[in-house]
Amino acid sequence: MLPEQARGGFPRLHVLDNVDPETISALLGRLILSRTLFIVTSKSGGTAETMAQFLIVSARLAAEGLALGSHVVFITDPSTGALRPLANAQGVPALDIPQSVGGRFSVLTPVGTLPSALIGIDIGTLLSGAEEMASRCDTDALLENPAGAFATLQWLADTRHGRTINVFMPYSDRLRDFADWFVQLWAESLGKQTTDGAYVGPTPLAALGATDQHSQVQLFMEGPKNKTVTFVAVSERGMDVTIPHGFSNVEELGYLGSHTLGELISIEQRATAGALAMRGRPNMTVHLQRVDEWHVGGLIMLLELATAYAGQLYGIDAFNQPGVELGKQFAYALLGRPGAQAARREWDSLPAPDPRWTV
Amino acid sequence: MLPEQARGGFPRLHVLDNVDPETISALLGRLILSRTLFIVTSKSGGTAETMAQFLIVSARLAAEGLALGSHVVFITDPSTGALRPLANAQGVPALDIPQSVGGRFSVLTPVGTLPSALIGIDIGTLLSGAEEMASRCDTDALLENPAGAFATLQWLADTRHGRTINVFMPYSDRLRDFADWFVQLWAESLGKQTTDGAYVGPTPLAALGATDQHSQVQLFMEGPKNKTVTFVAVSERGMDVTIPHGFSNVEELGYLGSHTLGELISIEQRATAGALAMRGRPNMTVHLQRVDEWHVGGLIMLLELATAYAGQLYGIDAFNQPGVELGKQFAYALLGRPGAQAARREWDSLPAPDPRWTV
Repeated sequence: MLPEQARGGFPRLHVLDNVDPETISALLGRLILSRTLFIVTSKSGGTAETMAQFLIVSARLAAEGLALGSHVVFITDPSTGALRPLANAQGVPALDIPQSVGGRFSVLTPVGTLPSALIGIDIGTLLSGAEEMASRCDTDALLENPAGAFATLQWLADTRHGRTINVFMPYSDRLRDFADWFVQLWAESLGKQTTDGAYVGPTPLAALGATDQHSQVQLFMEGPKNKTVTFVAVSERGMDVTIPHGFSNVEELGYLGSHTLGELISIEQRATAGALAMRGRPNMTVHLQRVDEWHVGGLIMLLELATAYAGQLYGIDAFNQPGVELGKQFAYALLGRPGAQAARREWDSLPAPDPRWTV
Repeated sequence: MLPEQARGGFPRLHVLDNVDPETISALLGRLILSRTLFIVTSKSGGTAETMAQFLIVSARLAAEGLALGSHVVFITDPSTGALRPLANAQGVPALDIPQSVGGRFSVLTPVGTLPSALIGIDIGTLLSGAEEMASRCDTDALLENPAGAFATLQWLADTRHGRTINVFMPYSDRLRDFADWFVQLWAESLGKQTTDGAYVGPTPLAALGATDQHSQVQLFMEGPKNKTVTFVAVSERGMDVTIPHGFSNVEELGYLGSHTLGELISIEQRATAGALAMRGRPNMTVHLQRVDEWHVGGLIMLLELATAYAGQLYGIDAFNQPGVELGKQFAYALLGRPGAQAARREWDSLPAPDPRWTV
């Protein structure tokens, strides 16, 4: 994560969550390194992608005579892993990811709050909103516990009614990436093998309203009955735009005048939810008063708690990710990391692709 | 779509595919209207979101004394719909969407080629790449027809082996939105009720490599055996970055030096594909030589043809979208469009949400 030079009082944030060389070289070519802070986030310090980025950035800083400790911050485990000793040896400031918190649950730790604070998000309010939701969910009365209700409904829909796919569809551009966050949380926490050997876990699917009404809603309406849809509706927009009257003799245009875009997007959401309900397609709507720190903090906590509950309902550990280990070992083997010899032998045992299929 | 003021010789393109008022007012506040061309794309001219945007833009242009015909282009049906007569009456230039081509198949018509050409994409090469793929698929020998093989494998996996979800996962940031394009194509074309009343259609899921290895691959590896994964690997990158040696005494960093990021992302893809295969999770890899006009044109055509084939295999019409009509009618009813009275009555028959559930 790379906050760049100041704009409107706050630095600009770039999130480098991939290792595509074209993206990285384009960005590094644009940044003024002397005015850039690099936030290197890895709990274990073992993630190959993040470590490769760190090596590239370190060398570029050194080439410009810039001190690592002035331009890099680590966010990592408080005591173990590769970055903590490096922080101590190189004088790099390092913030903690609490040991009990895994990556996908870490957005309310410095992993999320440091970059948020740097770009002007009020993280105190974010955390208060989360805290309020946590106390609200601290009840055994299921119907009064939003996280418990969410988890139970989705779990029942999946395991009793074959609704194996959970669509998450906010009607706000500012929540587009929030849906991707939910996908990681729900997929990586719940997609697991149980101790009985069963493979369980719903498949989350991100969609954006109203855009994806023209992309995926046909499938949600008339495809297999294997989905639930969770809408996130927003009641108040930070800004609204009135649709002016014009071409009032044209049937397709005349009726729109004096509605606002905020009304239009809200009506699109209600109409889509109603149409799905009319066709027996289960859906729910989470109403968010505003897209602000307080409400987003609450929604984060609601979904994190729901994920923990769902883990219990599915009978799996929501906090580990054993399934990605084999792929990591294969990557280490192919990159020649010491200690990956066993993975190398397993890799070599895989049949080669049939050359007839090479396109 | 709104190309803005020139940059590097080509205008900047903004794609306004939603009606979130915050996005639209922020963008309109930044644009210099006298140097902006608005491309209004709607086959029927009836899409509420696009028409609302058009009304807003028309009024803003009029307020600055700018002529509609100099700042707006329509892309629409050659003869029917609301925009064609408006084009004639107002002197607005209008390009054709061929009548036989529906929205989600229209990327190789002016819908995609006009904005592409304006930002410097070589659309001649794009179309040639598509044409070459079309002739390559013009064979009854299934194994030599990439589109036929893709469609048949996915259809068999779904209908014979319960693989109801088709993940599409390119390993290139530049193909991130391409995955969303595929999602619309596959979902809206195939998610249908058959004439026998069955609800069919696979559910496409967009993912981005290597990023989503840390987000969804746990689910793909150990979740239910209900998925196929299609990787898109890229052989040559327009630019690569060598990972420098550094901290060579640190186990997690030392092995990365002198590999390139291009190698790393490619190894991540192969390792993930191999790990899925090892666990009996079906996956295929489409190898793209480069992310350029020729190869992307070919990939577009491959997937469009595959979609048409899959429609035949599923026994549905891949080219309509009857399922979205009810939602549209509900929206018209709530917006007070004349002629939507029947939808209004149907809407009013829906039970209201249980107020106990309001969070």
